Amino acid sequence: MREAYHGELASIGASLVEMARLADSAMGRATTALLDADGRLAQSVISADERVDDVHRDLENRAIALLARQQPVATELRIVVTSLRIGADLERAADLAEHVAKLARRRFPDYVVPRDLQSTMLEMGRTAQRLMTEAADVVASRDVGRALQLERDDDRMDELHRTLFQHLLDERWEHGVEAAVDVTLAGRYYERFADHAVSVARRVVYLVTGEYADELTPPVVPLIVRA
Amino acid sequence: MREAYHGELASIGASLVEMARLADSAMGRATTALLDADGRLAQSVISADERVDDVHRDLENRAIALLARQQPVATELRIVVTSLRIGADLERAADLAEHVAKLARRRFPDYVVPRDLQSTMLEMGRTAQRLMTEAADVVASRDVGRALQLERDDDRMDELHRTLFQHLLDERWEHGVEAAVDVTLAGRYYERFADHAVSVARRVVYLVTGEYADELTPPVVPLIVRA
Repeated sequence: MREAYHGELASIGASLVEMARLADSAMGRATTALLDADGRLAQSVISADERVDDVHRDLENRAIALLARQQPVATELRIVVTSLRIGADLERAADLAEHVAKLARRRFPDYVVPRDLQSTMLEMGRTAQRLMTEAADVVASRDVGRALQLERDDDRMDELHRTLFQHLLDERWEHGVEAAVDVTLAGRYYERFADHAVSVARRVVYLVTGEYADELTPPVVPLIVRA
Repeated sequence: MREAYHGELASIGASLVEMARLADSAMGRATTALLDADGRLAQSVISADERVDDVHRDLENRAIALLARQQPVATELRIVVTSLRIGADLERAADLAEHVAKLARRRFPDYVVPRDLQSTMLEMGRTAQRLMTEAADVVASRDVGRALQLERDDDRMDELHRTLFQHLLDERWEHGVEAAVDVTLAGRYYERFADHAVSVARRVVYLVTGEYADELTPPVVPLIVRA
């Protein structure tokens, strides 16, 4: 019985890692579609979001079935409930990658991002992906030290977001209002995607320690606890 | 034992209704702050968000304690898990009201919204509030018929959002890029707030019927099920 239980818990963890990798890959392809004005690639990102939703719904059903059948308490209950929350974050992150792809599709065959902002946007995409790659690793390893590090890596995204706004609000902006609207939305999608990656990491901290990330005083000795 | 259980479940429901009303009121005040360029009101909305976070955290703790102590199955398990999700939606909705207030504060004493868009933005605010008022009533009444209606009411928000973009992208737009960026963000915040209200209603459908809103074929006979 306990063995079956731990097997199910591990499989829920594996689905979360899969979701994080799908979101990561979706954001990578969406960024390419956005910067290369690649309508076909954008469409493929949009179509692929269904896969994330399927994994998510399946994971939720398994988690709820686990609660019903095994009636976990204490640490194990915390793991199941937190897994549900991590799943919601990842589902939403994948939606945001889809939103970036939809921006690319809406303007196709035109480019959404003016040339002088391409490198900033590319770095936002890469930073978003790096954060999600780390979030996937944190979910897999339950490494609290790395989870707390991820929050600091998010500072780079905030910097890039500020750079984006400086460009937008510079009086020399010459790309018109439509480009400004698109760039504003894209920036928001990247920022929110990064927020969800950070949220996943914070939830892993809670899952492992039972304490919220903002209540821990660094430096925290990395703990590795496996179900 | 069962009586205590149902009392706790009812108190979780009451906290959800409280959160929805706080989010509703926050969005109302944030909209006034935005349209009247009222920095003090904006600040009060921002400060009040803590209250929502407190109610949310407390609600989550009680729901998890309930899972641990009472080990509900079937319908009751579905109610607790769904309540956790509704809480997450409402917490986020309140954040979006805070974001609107932050836009107002950032530009204070200037106005964020150009005069010719004020009425559209005001109606977005009112529609957002109406949806959240309905969501609160749906949570309180568990009325599936009204929950499904709410989804149709959200069409008005989509229309307003399209109107906003038509203004923004009209070549006669004369308010510059900064106003366009702010209006884009505000529009996004209202739209997402409405999405969360709809999501709350959909979750109530699932909570009551065990089926997802998009799997039900209308017309659905309103069911009222109380825990």
